[in-house]
Amino acid sequence: MRREPRVIGKPTRCTDGLEKVTGAARYTEDIRLPGMLYARLLLSPHPHARVVRLDRTDALRVPGVVAVVTEADLPEGVSSEFMAEEEVRYTGQPVAAVLAESEAAAADGLERLAAAVEYSELPAVLTPAEAMRDGAPLVSEAPEEDEDTEMQAHATIAAEGVKEPKPSNVADRYHFARGDVARGLREADLVVERTYTTSRIHQAYLEPHATVAAIDPVTGGITVYASTQGHFEVRDAVAEALGRPQHEVRVVPMAVGGGFGGKFAFFEPLVAALAVTVRRPVRLVLTRHEDFLMSNPGPECTIRLKTGVKRDGTLVALQARIVFDSGAASGAPASIAGILLGGYYRVPHLDIEALEVLTHKPPNGAYRAPGAPQATFAIESQMNVMAAELGLDPVEFRLMNAVNPGDPMPNGRPWAPMGLRPVLEALRDHPHWRAREKADGVGYGVAIGGWPGGLDSASACVRANTDGTFQVVLGIVDLTGTATTMQLIAAEVLGVPPERVRVAIADTDHAPYAGPTGGSKTTYTIGAAVKLAAEDARRQILSIAAAELEASPDDLEITDGKVQVRGTPQKAIPLAEIAEESMRFGAKYPPVFGNGQLPSPESSPGFAAHLAKVRVDRETGQARLLDYVVIQDVGFAINPAAVEGQMRGGAVQGIGWGLLEGMVYDEHGTLANGTFADYAIPKAADVPPMDIVMVEVPSDSGPFGAKGVGEPPVIPGAAAIANAIADAVGVRITDLPITPQRIVRSLPR
Amino acid sequence: MRREPRVIGKPTRCTDGLEKVTGAARYTEDIRLPGMLYARLLLSPHPHARVVRLDRTDALRVPGVVAVVTEADLPEGVSSEFMAEEEVRYTGQPVAAVLAESEAAAADGLERLAAAVEYSELPAVLTPAEAMRDGAPLVSEAPEEDEDTEMQAHATIAAEGVKEPKPSNVADRYHFARGDVARGLREADLVVERTYTTSRIHQAYLEPHATVAAIDPVTGGITVYASTQGHFEVRDAVAEALGRPQHEVRVVPMAVGGGFGGKFAFFEPLVAALAVTVRRPVRLVLTRHEDFLMSNPGPECTIRLKTGVKRDGTLVALQARIVFDSGAASGAPASIAGILLGGYYRVPHLDIEALEVLTHKPPNGAYRAPGAPQATFAIESQMNVMAAELGLDPVEFRLMNAVNPGDPMPNGRPWAPMGLRPVLEALRDHPHWRAREKADGVGYGVAIGGWPGGLDSASACVRANTDGTFQVVLGIVDLTGTATTMQLIAAEVLGVPPERVRVAIADTDHAPYAGPTGGSKTTYTIGAAVKLAAEDARRQILSIAAAELEASPDDLEITDGKVQVRGTPQKAIPLAEIAEESMRFGAKYPPVFGNGQLPSPESSPGFAAHLAKVRVDRETGQARLLDYVVIQDVGFAINPAAVEGQMRGGAVQGIGWGLLEGMVYDEHGTLANGTFADYAIPKAADVPPMDIVMVEVPSDSGPFGAKGVGEPPVIPGAAAIANAIADAVGVRITDLPITPQRIVRSLPR
Repeated sequence: MRREPRVIGKPTRCTDGLEKVTGAARYTEDIRLPGMLYARLLLSPHPHARVVRLDRTDALRVPGVVAVVTEADLPEGVSSEFMAEEEVRYTGQPVAAVLAESEAAAADGLERLAAAVEYSELPAVLTPAEAMRDGAPLVSEAPEEDEDTEMQAHATIAAEGVKEPKPSNVADRYHFARGDVARGLREADLVVERTYTTSRIHQAYLEPHATVAAIDPVTGGITVYASTQGHFEVRDAVAEALGRPQHEVRVVPMAVGGGFGGKFAFFEPLVAALAVTVRRPVRLVLTRHEDFLMSNPGPECTIRLKTGVKRDGTLVALQARIVFDSGAASGAPASIAGILLGGYYRVPHLDIEALEVLTHKPPNGAYRAPGAPQATFAIESQMNVMAAELGLDPVEFRLMNAVNPGDPMPNGRPWAPMGLRPVLEALRDHPHWRAREKADGVGYGVAIGGWPGGLDSASACVRANTDGTFQVVLGIVDLTGTATTMQLIAAEVLGVPPERVRVAIADTDHAPYAGPTGGSKTTYTIGAAVKLAAEDARRQILSIAAAELEASPDDLEITDGKVQVRGTPQKAIPLAEIAEESMRFGAKYPPVFGNGQLPSPESSPGFAAHLAKVRVDRETGQARLLDYVVIQDVGFAINPAAVEGQMRGGAVQGIGWGLLEGMVYDEHGTLANGTFADYAIPKAADVPPMDIVMVEVPSDSGPFGAKGVGEPPVIPGAAAIANAIADAVGVRITDLPITPQRIVRSLPR
Repeated sequence: MRREPRVIGKPTRCTDGLEKVTGAARYTEDIRLPGMLYARLLLSPHPHARVVRLDRTDALRVPGVVAVVTEADLPEGVSSEFMAEEEVRYTGQPVAAVLAESEAAAADGLERLAAAVEYSELPAVLTPAEAMRDGAPLVSEAPEEDEDTEMQAHATIAAEGVKEPKPSNVADRYHFARGDVARGLREADLVVERTYTTSRIHQAYLEPHATVAAIDPVTGGITVYASTQGHFEVRDAVAEALGRPQHEVRVVPMAVGGGFGGKFAFFEPLVAALAVTVRRPVRLVLTRHEDFLMSNPGPECTIRLKTGVKRDGTLVALQARIVFDSGAASGAPASIAGILLGGYYRVPHLDIEALEVLTHKPPNGAYRAPGAPQATFAIESQMNVMAAELGLDPVEFRLMNAVNPGDPMPNGRPWAPMGLRPVLEALRDHPHWRAREKADGVGYGVAIGGWPGGLDSASACVRANTDGTFQVVLGIVDLTGTATTMQLIAAEVLGVPPERVRVAIADTDHAPYAGPTGGSKTTYTIGAAVKLAAEDARRQILSIAAAELEASPDDLEITDGKVQVRGTPQKAIPLAEIAEESMRFGAKYPPVFGNGQLPSPESSPGFAAHLAKVRVDRETGQARLLDYVVIQDVGFAINPAAVEGQMRGGAVQGIGWGLLEGMVYDEHGTLANGTFADYAIPKAADVPPMDIVMVEVPSDSGPFGAKGVGEPPVIPGAAAIANAIADAVGVRITDLPITPQRIVRSLPR
């Protein structure tokens, strides 16, 4: 930009804030269609079993119950994608759907049906260790080759580790190697080996999964209203499951009450299949407990990590085995975890094996920065263990070994330009770090976290209205205020105040393509497309103005709602008039309609560094955060309010990973904490004062230098907290979450 | 096009036919919104009066009635556009609205309100003759300067006749002159003078006017569901009436049950103003009788026409005075009528005065080819009178004088390239004309009709889907199957079968701009934009394929759902794969998204020639059509089935003009035939066998040579029928409709 920004770079209220906080936003659950049926799902109570009897008689006797549908009842060529056929493979797998005229009738029908189904239990494997044993029951006869597409939404990086032969129930195995790790370990002055475990973490969105599907009785066209992070992805999944061309499926993105990776295409094909089967609109809204039971949380992970370091602090070797419990379907972020685990620091000798193992637990999905908190907890804990053993400052130790742009990642690809070092320097110079106090039970922990960033092609349209206002037409889902960011980008380019620009989010029938919202890529890719589209519209406007004013476009500027000859305000034409000249009977110019399209841009990884100050109560084991610093390279903050919201919210979730969260399954594979009364997420009282520090190392590709900011802030938290606890009370906890029990148990008595 | 068309040029069923004929299409009346109120309007029973008392008490006592709203109750800055303030200016003008929880309660409330309103009657002028008298009461203190914008939707031609000082109640006066008309008349061998009158004609759509408006309780944004020919026009009108920026108004175009010019922006601002006032959704659906009373039909017209001709058939002078009864607001098509009246034939001396006169009758609007049937009835009747007097063949007489492209219109502008002569030649050579039989009471009449064509800028988008199908995103309203035409255009360009292309019509939030549907310009302008957009998408596809196949784009062709190297079918890549490569995580190409924009193209006037064969019963005066020939230059018929539908339907409406239709007002300004029981439109039994003949003189600007085809077929009918009746029984009827009474009265006794 040649001139100072007028609109961007200032904290701006989100355009949809008011309707969200007043409860006026329309969610999927609010939809009522004529003739709509309410669905409830019968979920398997067993991790592995055969359905031997399913008697619908009693359920169908409930007044208002219209149908009981199993996978076998679906029309030919239609699949539900994940309703059980004969064998259930995890506790919580849908076995049948009860469809009724009301939610209450559906609930009654479900109760009767549950009493009329018999299972024959089969041996189940509930942990990767059991699953990989020779002769273990196979979770899937032929596990699909996972192409990591879900994960690519988040981090589009090539997993070029070799895929090698796999033990029983291993869906995917990646191997990244460089140098000679055995030699590296031999040459090290210090070798540290630890095993780190992280828990299965639910995305804990406020709104459970919800979908309404309706079939047009004449055309057969399908409309799906979905609480989703990506309506194009849902469209593709529904079309595929129903064997229809994509243009017969319209997906309307509703307001989303939180996603955090849990709301990519999920059970929309099931709901659409039910609607096709009964030829009536069908609504399915999960209860909170059902959502905990059957949805797709982030997977638990075990990482055995062995590192070798020279006395001067030079890392020389890293060897690791990462094992994800992928549940009953492949899709765990093994490759990303491997790349990040070995990617933050320069290390000449490296050997990482990353496995996805199938078990009879619910399949997992994406959780904000999939694989990154797990890998980062391991490497960033280990960095502090090494620093402590060598008597090095943990920040200086990190700075000494931190990768620079161009250094290789474990997959051999070079790191793109990024700001790891500036972020670490900002941490080193932060007053909270420089002035740390020594007090009993109080400790400080630092950790970094990086995210390669999702990449996607992107498109956007910017249309003028004939009163001089503008419409940005997009196919995004706005989870975090990105629509407001797009408004600011367009307003900046067009030279108008933001209130003259409206972002109109379209359904899959009308929207220019946008990938799902996730992977810290919405502002980065779609924002760039909006900028191109606004520039295109601006060019068209200036060209019309130039013709009307008999001036060169280069001499024109847009100001105060009009185009004027620079320095000659009396030679001016209002934007409204320009638009009108392009959109009316007999218009002599083409309609002002800007178009922006781009392929996946170059990657701009985002790095964060966190500092946690903690006080640990040695009696109760309670770790209480006293202060928190969130430093992040955001490239350029187009809407600092929204960026701060992302950094703050991500850091809070990181506190959940570190201290509170984890889904607990008993030995029968039954979830023990499937409600918000039992599953602990951070509450306001758990959140300490936070200092939010934005570092701005501009991206070459992002709009106005912006980088994706969504995932990085959730990554370092657990490690920073573990390091702070170690600093406070001298014990190293390697299992997440770090509950009071675990601390008490670890403390020397 | 280098190759033979594969898709276009073949009769194709309209994509929305099934839902229309099965009743499954959703019309505005079908909408039910939570909290929606039903509105009924109190219509004035007097043509001119003051409202002296309006007591709401009784109406508000009706259970379910929520509010009675007058113009004075609207919030500041909000206008209803046409609800009366204190003075009513026509019978049928809305005076107040009753809003109730049900249609029945609204009807009851309306009845009570009607009984509780008192008017003080004022002197009214009900005909242009009365209105123009010195000292006549003024219908409007300061009639707005009419810019003919409504009419420009239909025929974008400059009315460069001079506007001159106007008598009382004359809203607009155009004067077109060329040569010296007095000299021309002196030099003529034959001078004919006649006065022609045409009636006020209702568009007689099946679906009465209907609108639903809802205000978002939080954002204040307005959504309007409308039965309209142009949702952008409605958006602009609503935003203007409510004092809002356009981007706060979203207009959703619903299925339209017929428009024929009657459904441009109409009472949508009133309904939106009511919704703003009561802060609840409001629905207004007119009853059939209300629609007859208050909607905007085509205006009655009186034309005094004096023509001079040489003995050899050369026209030398044309003098005319055209007077439109515009009702209580300006907007009659005076300028177009003047241009057409003097535009079909070369005439060196010409003087045309065209007036729009305000009266205390309901305002008029557009009727298919506004002004053209009126002007054409006059000139085409007159042509036959002259031919008969001179003993000339009426077709040869027309061919002798017909304008050629480049000849001046009355406004001095040259006629664009067009096919008047080929159409007349096709008529001359048609077997029905060549082999006309002589029989008592049987006659043949011919007439031509031309339409300059509406012009508008246009835009369209064509998006690929990742399964190899396509979406055409448009802002049009499809009244006549144009969406199917757009589908064919895109499929032809993209080289795929039509079923792989879906036309998705978007609301004003998401659509690329399209002008209202009217004026024979949708296929002509938007079709051209779709072609550009599809070509753009095709270029993007070929460029991706070229990169993937390592070939030159010039060597590639699209066939069978894939792109292949011409002559090397084994070197191919499916369209689905190309789309996928452009729209997925990490896509290396920009999304395939074609964009087409164009300014108003050059005009391609459309000409038609009709031949009517009639038998007149001298006893009853009944004129019965025996045969009918509809010849039209359509440029190129992209979907011949749809073009034939237009030609046939227009011709049938022309029969209505000629023989049946006319709104009758009594001396108090009260409509006498305001129901379909009283207002006669053609029924199946009134329609003779029709021979539909398409002449194809390709347009340089229309897609694949297509021209607009909507208006021309309604234009010549009345004149052809009048000429046939004159041929059959020797009497010249100059007043429309030509009822049996008029014929009987004219026959010599």
